[in-house]
Amino acid sequence: MTFVSASNSIKLPSGDSYPLTGLGLWKVPQHACAELVYTALKIGYRLLDGAADYDNEVQAGEGLIRAVKEGIVKREEVTIVSKLWNTYHAAEHVEAACRRSLEDWKVDYFDVYYVHMPISLKYVDPKVRYPPGWSYDGTPTGPLELEDSPFHKTWEAMEKLVTLGLVRNIAISNMSGGLVMDLMRYARIKPAVLQVELHPYHAQQNLVRLAQAFNIHVTAYSSFGPTSWVGISDNVIAKCESLFDHSVIAGIAQKHNATAAQVVLRWATQQGVTVIPKSSDEKRLKENLENELLSLTEGEIKAIDKLDAGLRFADPGAIDPRLAMYA
Amino acid sequence: MTFVSASNSIKLPSGDSYPLTGLGLWKVPQHACAELVYTALKIGYRLLDGAADYDNEVQAGEGLIRAVKEGIVKREEVTIVSKLWNTYHAAEHVEAACRRSLEDWKVDYFDVYYVHMPISLKYVDPKVRYPPGWSYDGTPTGPLELEDSPFHKTWEAMEKLVTLGLVRNIAISNMSGGLVMDLMRYARIKPAVLQVELHPYHAQQNLVRLAQAFNIHVTAYSSFGPTSWVGISDNVIAKCESLFDHSVIAGIAQKHNATAAQVVLRWATQQGVTVIPKSSDEKRLKENLENELLSLTEGEIKAIDKLDAGLRFADPGAIDPRLAMYA
Repeated sequence: MTFVSASNSIKLPSGDSYPLTGLGLWKVPQHACAELVYTALKIGYRLLDGAADYDNEVQAGEGLIRAVKEGIVKREEVTIVSKLWNTYHAAEHVEAACRRSLEDWKVDYFDVYYVHMPISLKYVDPKVRYPPGWSYDGTPTGPLELEDSPFHKTWEAMEKLVTLGLVRNIAISNMSGGLVMDLMRYARIKPAVLQVELHPYHAQQNLVRLAQAFNIHVTAYSSFGPTSWVGISDNVIAKCESLFDHSVIAGIAQKHNATAAQVVLRWATQQGVTVIPKSSDEKRLKENLENELLSLTEGEIKAIDKLDAGLRFADPGAIDPRLAMYA
Repeated sequence: MTFVSASNSIKLPSGDSYPLTGLGLWKVPQHACAELVYTALKIGYRLLDGAADYDNEVQAGEGLIRAVKEGIVKREEVTIVSKLWNTYHAAEHVEAACRRSLEDWKVDYFDVYYVHMPISLKYVDPKVRYPPGWSYDGTPTGPLELEDSPFHKTWEAMEKLVTLGLVRNIAISNMSGGLVMDLMRYARIKPAVLQVELHPYHAQQNLVRLAQAFNIHVTAYSSFGPTSWVGISDNVIAKCESLFDHSVIAGIAQKHNATAAQVVLRWATQQGVTVIPKSSDEKRLKENLENELLSLTEGEIKAIDKLDAGLRFADPGAIDPRLAMYA
């Protein structure tokens, strides 16, 4: 089989295509990132979801270059994604942050460039520390310093990136309904994609409907729910079992002779939501991409819908009440 | 007893005092409104929570004038509240909307003027219909027409009302965390109060913590939960029993020889959250105000905290996906 044909794409309002299944680069260690990106491209992945904050853009770029050199893909066949980190929201820092990520990837443009979060942290000079992470002093428990960069000014600077040709589409991540509604009122260039935590335990039906009403494509992160958050959000994980072990998922997987991961991914992609799973295992990488070969019944999708419990694993508000952006 | 001394006040950042218990005027019919306001002031209420949309500001003003004329209160002893309706978010309509509400109340200034919702609907000329309600054509099922008035421009116009002396404090209502965070970045005059749905079934702890971190006082509406929403949100009501019948509330009420309503209100006010219940019954009006005489134990407050089920009764997103501001 050809995996490329397995991955369907949707068209963004710009006319660019954007795959339904991609590779997420969060938590991919530097030493493994080039190889993983190269392997994924070889297998058929055409969407690479990176971010400055993931601290592996240089290595991701190396994997891409190798695949291009070997003729596996052309640059323009790959949807390359990066994200503006929280410390660069001030209008005067947006372009430099984007250029730094472009240099790291060694590409001339990003297909999609996100604002990583609607959180504005105090600027940290890249010469001091890059990527700067959360705390102002760079220590794990250091103080969080907020910066007063209103989102509408950040967005204006994002729009300029399109005008400059540095990015083809601009997008938003970790945004809830109220902020999306407000953004739609002032955006000259509308957000093409909304990337949020979305899995059967947190199905976000109202947010997906809102995005659809505004013609914003949705990308899900943490598709496997608790599995992505071991060691980070253990208090939430304690409230649920692994999605892979859940009898509803396991039962559907068995019926389709598929993996539980494929069922969870297909539940999203069959509803038109892009997924960006990651795996360090080549076999699982293939299986994940092949989720699109499955065809779930409406009854199966509804059975999975019923697992929704509003369980959110990614919530900066748990660290600092001033960051309770989902409250 | 003197009921005035029963109602404690907090100080807003402006220095103005703002009572912990007030009278909410939502759903008060015009024919009963003047008498209700008059009675409430006589009993000791010093906070009147009105809004253009409640369609009873003329009558509320009549009740106030009668109480002032009879020497029951002075204007300056009463915290008078109104709210900017969704159709007046465009900067050029804010002042006129505020002045119309001031004329209706027959007062020179509002103590607190809210943006009623972070929703911007297409302008309806007051000569055509006032208050205009939700649908553009004024029919119950007519089309909802959105207007692209970004919140930061509406807020700038709200700030101008303070400068003009028309309002003493500006405030926000029905806002979720992400929007509050963004507003704090650009507000020259910070919001003094955040009014949201808040009751034991929807305790909003994260939002209250966010507000406290930003020095915004919280006012709860729908303190009695489902009771306020019969005939409006029956699908949500079906998921829970009346707070007044709940064994935890009833048990605490019995122990304190109080009403269930008093316990529910005191759960909020004892945590520093203002409540604005309404009743058409004078005895219950008194009882509600007297909630502040109760002293719940920490254990009782925690027992009520445990009833939180994230049950929201007020959600415009249920009407139109483009209004899913809590998603």
